[in-house]
Amino acid sequence: MKIGVDYYPEQWNRELWNADAVLMAQTGVKLVRMGEFAWSRLEPRDGEFHFEWLDEAIKTFSRYAMGIVLCTPTSCPPMWLYETYPDIIQVGADGNRLQTGIRGHRCLNAPMFLYYAKRITEQLAKRYANNPSIAAWQIDNEIEAYPCTCEVCREQFRDWLIDKHDTIENVNAAFGNIVWSGEYSDVSQIKPPNAYPKAWQNPALCLEFSRFSSDTACRFISDMSQIIKRENPKAKITTNICITKDLPDIYRLCDGLDFTSYDNYPPVRIPENEEEFYSHSFNLDMMRGSNQKNFWVMEQLSGATGSWMPMGPTPRPGQIKGYALQAMAHGADTVIHFRWRTANKGAEMHWHGLIDHSNIPGRRFAEFAELCKIAPKFDVIETTELVSEVAILYSPDNDRAFRIQPQTEGFDYWEQLKCFHAAFSKYGVNVDIISPDADLTKYKAVIAPSMYVYSKNSAENIYRYVIKGGTVVLTARSGVKDPNNNCIMEPLPTVYREMIGAEISEYDPIGKDEQTIVDFAGNEYKCRQWCDILELGTARAYAEYKDCFYGGKPAVTMNRYCSGVAYYVGTICHMDFYKKFAGNIMKQTGIPRLNDLPQGVEVTTRTNGLDDYIFFFNNSERETDINLPKSMYSIIEDKEKNMLRLAPFGMEIVRK
Amino acid sequence: MKIGVDYYPEQWNRELWNADAVLMAQTGVKLVRMGEFAWSRLEPRDGEFHFEWLDEAIKTFSRYAMGIVLCTPTSCPPMWLYETYPDIIQVGADGNRLQTGIRGHRCLNAPMFLYYAKRITEQLAKRYANNPSIAAWQIDNEIEAYPCTCEVCREQFRDWLIDKHDTIENVNAAFGNIVWSGEYSDVSQIKPPNAYPKAWQNPALCLEFSRFSSDTACRFISDMSQIIKRENPKAKITTNICITKDLPDIYRLCDGLDFTSYDNYPPVRIPENEEEFYSHSFNLDMMRGSNQKNFWVMEQLSGATGSWMPMGPTPRPGQIKGYALQAMAHGADTVIHFRWRTANKGAEMHWHGLIDHSNIPGRRFAEFAELCKIAPKFDVIETTELVSEVAILYSPDNDRAFRIQPQTEGFDYWEQLKCFHAAFSKYGVNVDIISPDADLTKYKAVIAPSMYVYSKNSAENIYRYVIKGGTVVLTARSGVKDPNNNCIMEPLPTVYREMIGAEISEYDPIGKDEQTIVDFAGNEYKCRQWCDILELGTARAYAEYKDCFYGGKPAVTMNRYCSGVAYYVGTICHMDFYKKFAGNIMKQTGIPRLNDLPQGVEVTTRTNGLDDYIFFFNNSERETDINLPKSMYSIIEDKEKNMLRLAPFGMEIVRK
Amino acid sequence: MKIGVDYYPEQWNRELWNADAVLMAQTGVKLVRMGEFAWSRLEPRDGEFHFEWLDEAIKTFSRYAMGIVLCTPTSCPPMWLYETYPDIIQVGADGNRLQTGIRGHRCLNAPMFLYYAKRITEQLAKRYANNPSIAAWQIDNEIEAYPCTCEVCREQFRDWLIDKHDTIENVNAAFGNIVWSGEYSDVSQIKPPNAYPKAWQNPALCLEFSRFSSDTACRFISDMSQIIKRENPKAKITTNICITKDLPDIYRLCDGLDFTSYDNYPPVRIPENEEEFYSHSFNLDMMRGSNQKNFWVMEQLSGATGSWMPMGPTPRPGQIKGYALQAMAHGADTVIHFRWRTANKGAEMHWHGLIDHSNIPGRRFAEFAELCKIAPKFDVIETTELVSEVAILYSPDNDRAFRIQPQTEGFDYWEQLKCFHAAFSKYGVNVDIISPDADLTKYKAVIAPSMYVYSKNSAENIYRYVIKGGTVVLTARSGVKDPNNNCIMEPLPTVYREMIGAEISEYDPIGKDEQTIVDFAGNEYKCRQWCDILELGTARAYAEYKDCFYGGKPAVTMNRYCSGVAYYVGTICHMDFYKKFAGNIMKQTGIPRLNDLPQGVEVTTRTNGLDDYIFFFNNSERETDINLPKSMYSIIEDKEKNMLRLAPFGMEIVRK
Repeated sequence: MKIGVDYYPEQWNRELWNADAVLMAQTGVKLVRMGEFAWSRLEPRDGEFHFEWLDEAIKTFSRYAMGIVLCTPTSCPPMWLYETYPDIIQVGADGNRLQTGIRGHRCLNAPMFLYYAKRITEQLAKRYANNPSIAAWQIDNEIEAYPCTCEVCREQFRDWLIDKHDTIENVNAAFGNIVWSGEYSDVSQIKPPNAYPKAWQNPALCLEFSRFSSDTACRFISDMSQIIKRENPKAKITTNICITKDLPDIYRLCDGLDFTSYDNYPPVRIPENEEEFYSHSFNLDMMRGSNQKNFWVMEQLSGATGSWMPMGPTPRPGQIKGYALQAMAHGADTVIHFRWRTANKGAEMHWHGLIDHSNIPGRRFAEFAELCKIAPKFDVIETTELVSEVAILYSPDNDRAFRIQPQTEGFDYWEQLKCFHAAFSKYGVNVDIISPDADLTKYKAVIAPSMYVYSKNSAENIYRYVIKGGTVVLTARSGVKDPNNNCIMEPLPTVYREMIGAEISEYDPIGKDEQTIVDFAGNEYKCRQWCDILELGTARAYAEYKDCFYGGKPAVTMNRYCSGVAYYVGTICHMDFYKKFAGNIMKQTGIPRLNDLPQGVEVTTRTNGLDDYIFFFNNSERETDINLPKSMYSIIEDKEKNMLRLAPFGMEIVRK
Repeated sequence: MKIGVDYYPEQWNRELWNADAVLMAQTGVKLVRMGEFAWSRLEPRDGEFHFEWLDEAIKTFSRYAMGIVLCTPTSCPPMWLYETYPDIIQVGADGNRLQTGIRGHRCLNAPMFLYYAKRITEQLAKRYANNPSIAAWQIDNEIEAYPCTCEVCREQFRDWLIDKHDTIENVNAAFGNIVWSGEYSDVSQIKPPNAYPKAWQNPALCLEFSRFSSDTACRFISDMSQIIKRENPKAKITTNICITKDLPDIYRLCDGLDFTSYDNYPPVRIPENEEEFYSHSFNLDMMRGSNQKNFWVMEQLSGATGSWMPMGPTPRPGQIKGYALQAMAHGADTVIHFRWRTANKGAEMHWHGLIDHSNIPGRRFAEFAELCKIAPKFDVIETTELVSEVAILYSPDNDRAFRIQPQTEGFDYWEQLKCFHAAFSKYGVNVDIISPDADLTKYKAVIAPSMYVYSKNSAENIYRYVIKGGTVVLTARSGVKDPNNNCIMEPLPTVYREMIGAEISEYDPIGKDEQTIVDFAGNEYKCRQWCDILELGTARAYAEYKDCFYGGKPAVTMNRYCSGVAYYVGTICHMDFYKKFAGNIMKQTGIPRLNDLPQGVEVTTRTNGLDDYIFFFNNSERETDINLPKSMYSIIEDKEKNMLRLAPFGMEIVRK
Repeated sequence: MKIGVDYYPEQWNRELWNADAVLMAQTGVKLVRMGEFAWSRLEPRDGEFHFEWLDEAIKTFSRYAMGIVLCTPTSCPPMWLYETYPDIIQVGADGNRLQTGIRGHRCLNAPMFLYYAKRITEQLAKRYANNPSIAAWQIDNEIEAYPCTCEVCREQFRDWLIDKHDTIENVNAAFGNIVWSGEYSDVSQIKPPNAYPKAWQNPALCLEFSRFSSDTACRFISDMSQIIKRENPKAKITTNICITKDLPDIYRLCDGLDFTSYDNYPPVRIPENEEEFYSHSFNLDMMRGSNQKNFWVMEQLSGATGSWMPMGPTPRPGQIKGYALQAMAHGADTVIHFRWRTANKGAEMHWHGLIDHSNIPGRRFAEFAELCKIAPKFDVIETTELVSEVAILYSPDNDRAFRIQPQTEGFDYWEQLKCFHAAFSKYGVNVDIISPDADLTKYKAVIAPSMYVYSKNSAENIYRYVIKGGTVVLTARSGVKDPNNNCIMEPLPTVYREMIGAEISEYDPIGKDEQTIVDFAGNEYKCRQWCDILELGTARAYAEYKDCFYGGKPAVTMNRYCSGVAYYVGTICHMDFYKKFAGNIMKQTGIPRLNDLPQGVEVTTRTNGLDDYIFFFNNSERETDINLPKSMYSIIEDKEKNMLRLAPFGMEIVRK
């Protein structure tokens, strides 16, 4: 595993560069990421390029055998560019143009921005794409599918719609514009739905605009990537993903890239209540699933976070090292810490790096140094990958659609995914988070929560999987919408009815209220948010409602379909249900389980086909012991062990 | 009683029309409402009218002996109209123009909107006003007194003010503009008070603007109504009222209309705590009181509600039928359910109709069918009306004024009205909600809560009533403001002092704090929000404060005035007080009471002068029994009964 | 002590003036403040001045030997001025111009506003500056450092920055603009940071803009003051301070003024929980400290408050009189009540004066009359002042900086100051709140909480004080920022390290979490928000952390430095700690303490060098007794007393 740091040469006096490089080399740093905010120093005036300082910075660090991750600086255009073309800045949902002085605020469709973005990317590519010190490229920074409503975006959105739907009549039909006499008689009447007032918006229009915004972000990354590839087809290119509410479609985003990278900020405060606890490993598995390969962490938690928002607590002992190793346990081969030294200036000066403002390395740096020290032991692991028998399907389209129409008070698409992820993780198995369109044949069980918006590809993919013997779990709010985000005139779950062997006669959006279900073994569980009332066809009831007017009606069903099995969970439960349910699925499908793992202990396995490396991570603040079934070889401690004693956030890796 | 449904022919394929009509006819549907959102199909291009489809729709349903309620479509102008005249859209309080694609967003003062609205209304009137299938007309949809601040509204508001006050000097005096050197030297300086920042606004200006907005809405409805009357003076015309914070003056709104209609969405979740529980019957009584006649329900709860907001729970068994019958118990002669089938497209696709997206009739439809089946039994009831001995005065002007200046934390004008309504309702009597200017002579007791803004008519009306022997209850915050919303320089309750025989020496706006009052019989009650400290003149104390520096001072008084009695309740209490107090008022005035009604059971009586029909409605989730004093004839079950067993939301109607 | 009232002759019929003056004279009122909102009557049209009515008003009241406090009316320009120059109104943070019809909304940098403001001030000065009835002048009203973003303010802010930093390069360096490529290439690119979106702002830019806004307010007051001084150099001039989030730098504001005045609205609701309770005396001490002299109260609580916000409770018996005397106990020589009679019109009609809308004097007026009656007894006190041995440093610059970057959830600069103030106050000593640049030599102990932004003057002042034998208490977040609001590259607390003999190896921003500290005597206290982890140099530990990874590390230290002592409190505690800590400081520095004062009782002392007058104020709702160590002479009751029985909000003053 390679350990790196984020570094901003343009923010520090040159005298510091060499001192920093020396300390990095001593510590064992192997990669230095730089450049993503440096446009104003690379091109201080229109067309006047200054690369000497970057040449020197690259030389300074590569002199000590560190590789450079070079970023394109398009996230922060320089002031002179705004001055000349003020309309390259995004316009917010309320119609106001953002102000300068911040970051990530350029409009990705603005023609003059694109002209200059391409030029600076080209210049960098020409100068550095064949420089052997460059280990990888990062395009832009934390790209978002931001819903810009500027005049250019409006125009392009109109074109995008007509490209897709052919005629204005088709758009009217797709949006159901007749409903409120909102039929467009001219394409110019189409407006992004983010305007005023917030409510009353057409969900079909909203979903299309959200897709358009995502496409915009993905196309920008792809176009910039092509510019570098043109100079060096072997250049390794990525963009760093940051999970926000405006996350672009991660599968499309990562499609043309060489590898996925992720900005990883696990929580410092660990909730006591198991119900509230979702390991950050969900996000890591999702990153691995974005293109089903190992990935990099491009920014890793290094200190207290905070900026315009108040600071949070400083990482607990073990978290700097442990969370980096947890990333490896889920498929990261490289972890780059954000950042070497905390910024003394600018809006993010309270987002702490490894070294504090004082420039005196302290406790966190010492822990980072330990990490660097043991990292070479993991070289054997770099050639391994995670093989999973369980997959959970994450669909960007459903994610978007649920944000547009929250189904009921408390309903949260991500929460449901994380519940299933946590339930299987508690048995110590690898879990993949993948696209509904991904190849499912290698899995023994596939969880497909709330397959809300119909996609022909995805539905056929799931059918093919079950027909050939797979086990699938579908849940409430599946098959509800057609691809235009309109309701389908068929009994729910529409296209999935045949597979689950049951249909929904009615539903009860209970929101914050609670109901109770009883499973076939007599166990009772509280459920919440949504209750589908099912009528059995070929299916059997796995659990039934206890009370209300649907007491005795099935809530969860199980159906043998062709060679496979389809479960349907018509409600949202708590962890007690999901854990038991996951256990039963694993029993049924023959996935081996580790029972009785202590709370917070996460177990994953990486393999190269010959050797298996098992990771035991203690994601809790309590020391805990694990007795191994047989003596195994500890990679970190270089010896055989029967028992693993895990400190808080401690990691052990054994070869099986 | 006639049962109907809301139907949107323009939203469905024509193949469905006939199938729907057949099912409606089988089910017993008697009325179909249509047209309120169909402008873009009636006039797809400027001046190009297409009525053939509407002709056919009307024919399709009237063929099965169903009457048509035809709506004018002015709530949703078509896109081509916005394109030509973008300034026909409202401008919000913050100065931003609303966007298209929603509903109810046209400015009711915009000249070009009015031109087109009149034309389409005229076209519809000419074609259908004498069509015998048209049972009634609905003007526009859920009209609101929306505070539009567009340039036209500003101008018209200025004219409205000068019309009313004659000179700019009078406006300055009425607004007290001298206070902050805000005296207008030119009429152009007058601006609606809805701008920026929200606070600091002059309450006199705010009240006038709110009255202007209400007048705008009322005038629009009246003008459109006249257009139809011109074609057929016997046309039955209404507009459907939806209770929102921008409710126009309901008395003025209904004044020129043939009948009142109401969009009735009672709550699905019934609060357990009696304190939180206000029956939706308050609203129904208010609708009957809007013009003191029986009314229609134009939209009736039919399924789970939700749209841009999350969905709520689905109606409980009994609610579809029970809430429709509850409306009848309070004076509805027609109940039209919203809507036949849930929309599959558009922003309101989660606002459920009787039939789900699937088009498979289910549990709720079955209950609706039952309702239709028994409806013919109520034909005898159609000629009856509610006669009440108790009235509560609702004043739109006070309602507005309290929104402008919330008196204290928690103070809520409607809550106070609803407390009194619930208190009397618990004794099984009819209660009217009427205008302070309505004829009071027929009532034995009149509750006049918080008569805040002085109206000469209302005050004289109340005085006349008491002088001739009536019993009135006044409450805190009466007589505070002159008609311009300024404070009166007299001891409170100013004009009402003489009548109540007491005056207020001081008040304590306690907000969320609590005090205690003790009534003449020694009962203690908590009180809240406001404490008037009274000095007795001719009055006697009904209750006194227990603590604080006004311990021992009267809080509630009773005064014999001329031939009548005037109570004054100087504080806000909880239901325990109001129930006891209502009981005492009824005892004093000789209104017969039903004691010991089970919680949630509502009893009202409709009469035709000969026969009395008593309605027993169980507005709760618990089955309950009522023992009748003697055997009575059940209209629903067609037999004599001594005991009524009411299912949850069950209704029994007996002839006395 | 002089008692006065605020009066608005322009709001009342002239018939009332004389009646009011007679009642004031009978009651014992000595001062009448007027004029601050009367511009539209003083200059109803451009250049047309009407002073006759003001002449008459002044005559009416001075006839009864009352002095006049005359206010300049620049807080509310007349409408005709806005009509001619609409851009004299402020532009809010979101870029929208405020509307007319409110107050305090003029832009203090708008050239045409300044032209007219100077002219009306000049006119008033020429006419009244030498009128012997004028006791004092008030400039404007409740001036705020409002962050106006209008075009003029933008331009002036740019000039202000260049004046201060010389070159655009220096501004770029000071703001760290390189961080996000935000380097200005032209001065026109500089924009106030209050725009859209709210977050992501550069803290260096924010602090400079906040300083600029404060400077704007201070300069305006100073300029207007000069105009009056030009006519009469002996005129006594002030401006009334209102504590809001946009408070200007009070030291700079009061610098050129003859005395400080304050709008004093202590809370009517007294919290039961000691933790929540901060006496309003903190604000009074701060006003005295603004220029280290006695001060006036220009507006004093007289009734229930409320306006656009709901009304709060009416003052409890004793509060009208008691809070006025509390102000005297902290250095007020004059208390003017807001207002004589409650406004019947305008936005503030619910902000109650001494007399209610009814114009019938009531309970509150009677208490005010009592106050007036005893006021002459305090004439001897007018020549006295408070001498303190403890000072707390309040820094406007730190106040601002902490608003810009809230350190952690719950962190509140003012709360910390108030905790220390309350802790010392509980021992019955005078406490000064002063500038970090004030002369400290006269204090035995100086509390310097969170000296966040470095100021050379302040740091040297504190060092000088300790070197010469003073005792100082520094606390967490000291020495963090350089004068540009950037972090200093040195171990914390940077410049104060040497003095405290310790340094901070790490900190933990725990926010709402809690930790525990144990002092040298074994007492445990909960701490919160922030934990500095200290390494001792020459210092000793006063308290250590108990748990977490820094258990056993010092949290509070004590260091002998030269002839003095420097404490450092590296965390935020609750009152239990501060009270004990203050007691220890007082013991160490030899400040005499009154132990066992009942909760809520405040004791201060005023002296003229010969006689000491001790004030005992019961700031609680419970009667309480104080046994004096020896018999003393009660100024209020004119007799010797051994025991003081204090009613709720009661005051006793004894001569020692």
